[in-house]
Amino acid sequence: MLVQKYRDMLTQKSVIRQLSEFATARGKEIGYENVFDYSLGNPSVPVPQEFTDTMIHMLTTRESNELHGYSPNPGITSVREAVAASLEKRFGLPYRKEHIFMASGAAGALAHAFRLVTEPGDEILTFAPFFPEYHPYVDLTGAILKVVPPDTENFQIHFEKFEEMLTEKVMAVLINSPNNPSGVVYTRQTLEKVANILRKKSAEYGHDIFLISDEPYREIVFDGAEAPCVSRFYDNTIMCYSFSKSLSLPGERIGYVAVNPRCKYAEEMVYMCVQISRGTGHNCPPSIIQLAVAQVLDKTAELSVYETNRNILYRELVNLGFTCVKPGGTFYIFPKALEEDAKVFCEKALKYDLILVPGDTFGAPGYFRMAYCIDTEKVKRSLEALRRFVKEEYGR
Amino acid sequence: MLVQKYRDMLTQKSVIRQLSEFATARGKEIGYENVFDYSLGNPSVPVPQEFTDTMIHMLTTRESNELHGYSPNPGITSVREAVAASLEKRFGLPYRKEHIFMASGAAGALAHAFRLVTEPGDEILTFAPFFPEYHPYVDLTGAILKVVPPDTENFQIHFEKFEEMLTEKVMAVLINSPNNPSGVVYTRQTLEKVANILRKKSAEYGHDIFLISDEPYREIVFDGAEAPCVSRFYDNTIMCYSFSKSLSLPGERIGYVAVNPRCKYAEEMVYMCVQISRGTGHNCPPSIIQLAVAQVLDKTAELSVYETNRNILYRELVNLGFTCVKPGGTFYIFPKALEEDAKVFCEKALKYDLILVPGDTFGAPGYFRMAYCIDTEKVKRSLEALRRFVKEEYGR
Repeated sequence: MLVQKYRDMLTQKSVIRQLSEFATARGKEIGYENVFDYSLGNPSVPVPQEFTDTMIHMLTTRESNELHGYSPNPGITSVREAVAASLEKRFGLPYRKEHIFMASGAAGALAHAFRLVTEPGDEILTFAPFFPEYHPYVDLTGAILKVVPPDTENFQIHFEKFEEMLTEKVMAVLINSPNNPSGVVYTRQTLEKVANILRKKSAEYGHDIFLISDEPYREIVFDGAEAPCVSRFYDNTIMCYSFSKSLSLPGERIGYVAVNPRCKYAEEMVYMCVQISRGTGHNCPPSIIQLAVAQVLDKTAELSVYETNRNILYRELVNLGFTCVKPGGTFYIFPKALEEDAKVFCEKALKYDLILVPGDTFGAPGYFRMAYCIDTEKVKRSLEALRRFVKEEYGR
Repeated sequence: MLVQKYRDMLTQKSVIRQLSEFATARGKEIGYENVFDYSLGNPSVPVPQEFTDTMIHMLTTRESNELHGYSPNPGITSVREAVAASLEKRFGLPYRKEHIFMASGAAGALAHAFRLVTEPGDEILTFAPFFPEYHPYVDLTGAILKVVPPDTENFQIHFEKFEEMLTEKVMAVLINSPNNPSGVVYTRQTLEKVANILRKKSAEYGHDIFLISDEPYREIVFDGAEAPCVSRFYDNTIMCYSFSKSLSLPGERIGYVAVNPRCKYAEEMVYMCVQISRGTGHNCPPSIIQLAVAQVLDKTAELSVYETNRNILYRELVNLGFTCVKPGGTFYIFPKALEEDAKVFCEKALKYDLILVPGDTFGAPGYFRMAYCIDTEKVKRSLEALRRFVKEEYGR
């Protein structure tokens, strides 16, 4: 007897994946270089050379059992120490290894965070536009994901709706800044307001409400800015980090849970993560990758290409008359479609070999996402297609 | 509000871990080389040189995005093809990539297998002596693990008890051969009998009963023998494999689920594993490790040391009058203690710096486990301590 809930999921096709498959198929017809594939958020720049050098150096010099042996359950001690020291230096909070649990990317980190603070039937709130995988991630734990409608003015937070939906059933609030798909970075004011509301409601309901901060794009922020550190605003913050985007190694599945040192349960929560792992079959990210990443914690891949692409695309979209919030980071932009139904809009774009993803998937119908983690040269070539598309279909 | 079930687990200390910590502490006093630490099942031999060479070669020659990019959800296609081809050649069953789901070690593979075929409240049967982590692995899915008492004659299967406990609620039977902790390899007769019973009961109850075969020790079999391929005996078999022991890289978290090609749901089950992953935060083993392992699928680490150790220990234990089933594989041996309470027996052994694990943990009170994945030289030196222990405490 196969379990029905997973069987049922087989028939639900991901829109992003379908578009990406279309792009691959179309690429076989006309050459992939002629398909302007803005569908997938797959880092396009190489890993830093230091990462590769570190890997080779370790493989050449270290004892096999030291390199490939079991990692202690919360992660390799020296790696957790290095991560804590880096976070302390960067954000001025007293992180220690006791606050760090090494996880298999942000997905692994989130799987632990959700289970730390919610039982089946509890609610988690997130804000549109949002990463659509949050639905299966949360739903399959038995908790319930509810989505606060977007503040379409600037893709910060619709606070009125947020307060309305923040009922007693909500045990955690999930944020993602810099945001996929909008590219927006939450401001200090936004984070302060979130924190104030959570403190007020925690007191009112007599239970803690945790803030789960999904931060895979933390290092991709433009115009010389920095994403404000969420933990500085709210004690009960669980940071979920991934090196996938900062180091361009999404396949290596490496990240961490960092519980705010100011959270009174911080150490206990890290050891609870270890217990949670036993049920999910997680059992630590790969040892060699943990050890290598610890050597390049403060490096990043050459991320400036994303800012270059943002500049080119944003300028052109605005010129063409799109309503568009300027992304402060990530490699996404999320303009308003030129007709009400963004699915129809994106369908029409396919004729011009422009692969755009309708915003419905992200809880923001009427918008569309472009993932510009592609070569700048291709972004430039796509502008002509974009102009033709807008002119021929919408007369602009 | 932290989730109580995980909090509660924090107070339950693993006996094996406690003993291992004792060994480490004692090692600091008298030198670790003088502690005969038989507590942990941690491979002691190095990875094959071919693995290291392959890693370095790939890091030196391959494109970063190809090497470190996202793996497709069921695993990298070429890796699944290579695993399927190797299984087909080895076991004569028509494995194709569609039957293979790459997983983070056997723990990751089991987490998927359990969720494929059990809902909360369903039962999974396993056989004592058994790997104690099966309890949290299963319990945390919401299913219920029930343990069939041991056949202490030869540590095959107590069939009478098995049939008695195989009620309508049982959706899966979990076996582990070569077995941790007994070292025993299930015979063809045993597997045939299991299969016959499962077929009979599946028909009687009108639902499939799956056989989940946990096989991390498949390659560690002694006396030139081979462990019989479980899938050859029963169509509804889910093989859960790990390279941890065969390649000596337990920290790299690499293994797979291989659904029997003869199982009528095989392909569907692999895609169900992908859905399950979204809930557990699994999202594939690391890309570079997948690619490297695919290059050395038919290699193993130098495993013969385990057979050498088995021979030395088995001979000595029998000479000293222990009742002991001769291990056919793994790096464990599971003799009967010299007094009824194996916990007391193992406690006394500590005085001789012999770290043995009481069988209670494995569902077989009165026995004890020795994990002989240590240097042969140390095994030899431990014999003197073993003789003194037996003589001084038990007058033998």
